[in-house]
Amino acid sequence: MGRTFTYETYKVSELFEFMRTVILRLGHRVQRDQRITTHVALTARALGAEGMLLDSDDSGIEKSINEVTQRWGGSFYVRRITNWKNEIRNWKESGGKVLHLTMYGVNLPDIINEVVTENLLIVVGAEKVPPELYGLADWNVAVGNQPHSEVAALALVLDRLATYSGIEPLKTQFGGGEVEIVPNRRGKEVREK
Amino acid sequence: MGRTFTYETYKVSELFEFMRTVILRLGHRVQRDQRITTHVALTARALGAEGMLLDSDDSGIEKSINEVTQRWGGSFYVRRITNWKNEIRNWKESGGKVLHLTMYGVNLPDIINEVVTENLLIVVGAEKVPPELYGLADWNVAVGNQPHSEVAALALVLDRLATYSGIEPLKTQFGGGEVEIVPNRRGKEVREK
Repeated sequence: MGRTFTYETYKVSELFEFMRTVILRLGHRVQRDQRITTHVALTARALGAEGMLLDSDDSGIEKSINEVTQRWGGSFYVRRITNWKNEIRNWKESGGKVLHLTMYGVNLPDIINEVVTENLLIVVGAEKVPPELYGLADWNVAVGNQPHSEVAALALVLDRLATYSGIEPLKTQFGGGEVEIVPNRRGKEVREK
Repeated sequence: MGRTFTYETYKVSELFEFMRTVILRLGHRVQRDQRITTHVALTARALGAEGMLLDSDDSGIEKSINEVTQRWGGSFYVRRITNWKNEIRNWKESGGKVLHLTMYGVNLPDIINEVVTENLLIVVGAEKVPPELYGLADWNVAVGNQPHSEVAALALVLDRLATYSGIEPLKTQFGGGEVEIVPNRRGKEVREK
């Protein structure tokens, strides 16, 4: 089963129509970045991204995120890649745009109205990224121009792009999966699907 | 020098007037959580929180965040604490409210209009939190009711609380510090202050 989305619990599938978003995670170091990259993937999935390309042969991320998707639903994927420049080239050749998250870029509120596209690849680097990325990206975007977390920056970009278009990404619902949460004011409630 | 804030680059100090926000980081494990907790602190600082209480004797976080504040400005602090229940009690006795981030809670869009307070303590747990926290918190709040990153969840709560009140937290400016970024479409530019 694929994903379905609700907006205000009534409108279904709007996120699909609104924008196709894929994350490209660059510079992942196998031991050091495992948890942060997992957080990047969880954030992307929770906010309705389609999947994540991981420029690394680290299979641990793929495994843990696949377990999340199996249990909690949806069709988010992690795909390991070996040549990030090819991925960017292919993306652009098929008409997509590339947004690179960097604290040195143009501040998100000053550029969000430009970032209107059906297919968006969001590049999330670890500490250092290849300098040529700045030229390959359609937009180099900062989330506040201060030292930041790339996890937080990704969350804010995905949230603001969606809400700017009138979509509530926190109401995303995921088809399939084994369990779902029943929101609760005081405790934990999980029900089998 | 303290922090100053701008909103749409004209209105100064509004975030101060709007809400005092402090983060309480619970369940931090010294080796395992160092990077995630650092991301929590960076996110809190970048989005205008006052500081972070860290329920751990890990001095590494304090050191690295103090270096960020020295270089990039503002007055964000990290304070190590030993008794989180006392901190919550004191906070509530002085009239503050407590918001606990948990994927099992009420979804943020469904509760944000309730969370209006001048002094907010936001509890960000690592993997497990003490069950009694659910009873001590004024609000148990989810950011989408899906497995998530606590870094992303914190970012979205801080951003939405601010924007809900008409504040643009990504335009926060920090007084003092040694350097600042000049936003750039294609490269990196940092100038001395």
